[in-house]
Amino acid sequence: MPVPCLPSESKPAAGDEAFAATRTAIREGRYTGHTSGLAADRVQGNLVILPQAWALDFLRYCQANRKPCPVLAVSEPGDPRLPTLGAGIDIRSDVPRYRVWRHGELVDEPTDIGGLWRDDLVSFVIGCSFSFEQALLDGGIPLRHVQQGRNVAMYRTSIATVPAGPFGGPLVVSMRPLKAAAAIQAVQITARLPEVHGAPVHLGDPALIGIADLSRPDYGDAVEVMADELPVFWACGVTPQAALARARPEFCITHAPGAMLITDLTNPQLAAR
Amino acid sequence: MPVPCLPSESKPAAGDEAFAATRTAIREGRYTGHTSGLAADRVQGNLVILPQAWALDFLRYCQANRKPCPVLAVSEPGDPRLPTLGAGIDIRSDVPRYRVWRHGELVDEPTDIGGLWRDDLVSFVIGCSFSFEQALLDGGIPLRHVQQGRNVAMYRTSIATVPAGPFGGPLVVSMRPLKAAAAIQAVQITARLPEVHGAPVHLGDPALIGIADLSRPDYGDAVEVMADELPVFWACGVTPQAALARARPEFCITHAPGAMLITDLTNPQLAAR
Repeated sequence: MPVPCLPSESKPAAGDEAFAATRTAIREGRYTGHTSGLAADRVQGNLVILPQAWALDFLRYCQANRKPCPVLAVSEPGDPRLPTLGAGIDIRSDVPRYRVWRHGELVDEPTDIGGLWRDDLVSFVIGCSFSFEQALLDGGIPLRHVQQGRNVAMYRTSIATVPAGPFGGPLVVSMRPLKAAAAIQAVQITARLPEVHGAPVHLGDPALIGIADLSRPDYGDAVEVMADELPVFWACGVTPQAALARARPEFCITHAPGAMLITDLTNPQLAAR
Repeated sequence: MPVPCLPSESKPAAGDEAFAATRTAIREGRYTGHTSGLAADRVQGNLVILPQAWALDFLRYCQANRKPCPVLAVSEPGDPRLPTLGAGIDIRSDVPRYRVWRHGELVDEPTDIGGLWRDDLVSFVIGCSFSFEQALLDGGIPLRHVQQGRNVAMYRTSIATVPAGPFGGPLVVSMRPLKAAAAIQAVQITARLPEVHGAPVHLGDPALIGIADLSRPDYGDAVEVMADELPVFWACGVTPQAALARARPEFCITHAPGAMLITDLTNPQLAAR
């Protein structure tokens, strides 16, 4: 199952000026890796492409579960463009690496999906925690997994999402350990970013949301929680991926883990639109 | 064409304790009027009911135009319940008065739509400016149309919404005249309420968004703008109604002007969910 946002480890930071070159390198298949740190001021997004017959149920699922599934854009059926995220985006080529799923099984990981395109495909771009982590760092909130070059720790919870058609299942959360004052600031900062998961869904005792052992995340890497810290839990973009894996649509394309769509939108634009 | 939110003129304020009685009176057809001031702490919403064949395009339209079309809930196809807005809501009876449209023409204004219900109908509830006006009043921002017992002034603009399938057309805005300091506060207050139209879309010169004459609103009542005030413009829930009128679906049900769905959700819950 794809893990949508894996902040951290890999790439050298690239400034605004590198944005066009990055888009071109991805489009031409010369860059096929993780996008963390690439064109770092641009909003990145999780990708889900579904046949139109599944699209209403999936969009209803996202609407009913806005915190884990904040939809940034939906394409016209059959149209590979996403003009509200960037005038030039072509979703068939502008993600470094894709995953192709048939009946819930991973069947391929191509770097271009032009050959798989169909007139009934609808693309969904879903907000990603890269943007809110940048806002936290800009706000002076330290993030341990970033400091340690690890992926964020993610957990399945006992909180059920609101189902829609075949889509449903547990809320998946990401966890960041913070001192209380930083946790309070982080609530305020992320509450202002509803399009990238918004305010936390829980903080404190993990057992209250069905997490038995913080040292054993379901996805990503464990990080230590110090005695003077609270674990703070945000809704995570793995939730819709898990819902897709559970629904097993006959055909589906997603981004490969960490290889996100880089949009034209900047993080400050996202915060104020 | 229905005008979704007509704050103001009519009803005596009713406290929390009256909520259940209000719901019952509406359900039983004993109350068929405007909902302004009824159960005033509860979130009210615009209603759109469409056949499933139109639902994906309409939901894509709302997603692409979140400020005028903030979707609070979407039903399962054929299911008259809206559990995320209230455990007991039955959309067939819980709006005081409906409007039934066929091919874009108004054909009936019933107080119950049980007899029109179909297995393919999808209900959309869209946030309404009642909630943000309450937040502005609570924040000490005076609203002239409320003081004067008028409907808010609404205008078609030269700003095009992002189209989706057959849905599109101009952004419709509501206007409230404010002194600069109040306008700045109002931006901050309403930015925190993205589910009820969020921050303003424009302030100052109306000509810049294609409004020729503030004294001649396209919907609602004109209010004076004093020399020391700016007109402040918010995206308005009439926008999706206008898009529906333009798309002329073969069948559609909406609320009648001012006769909204009263949800179980309180305004403070909406601001923090």
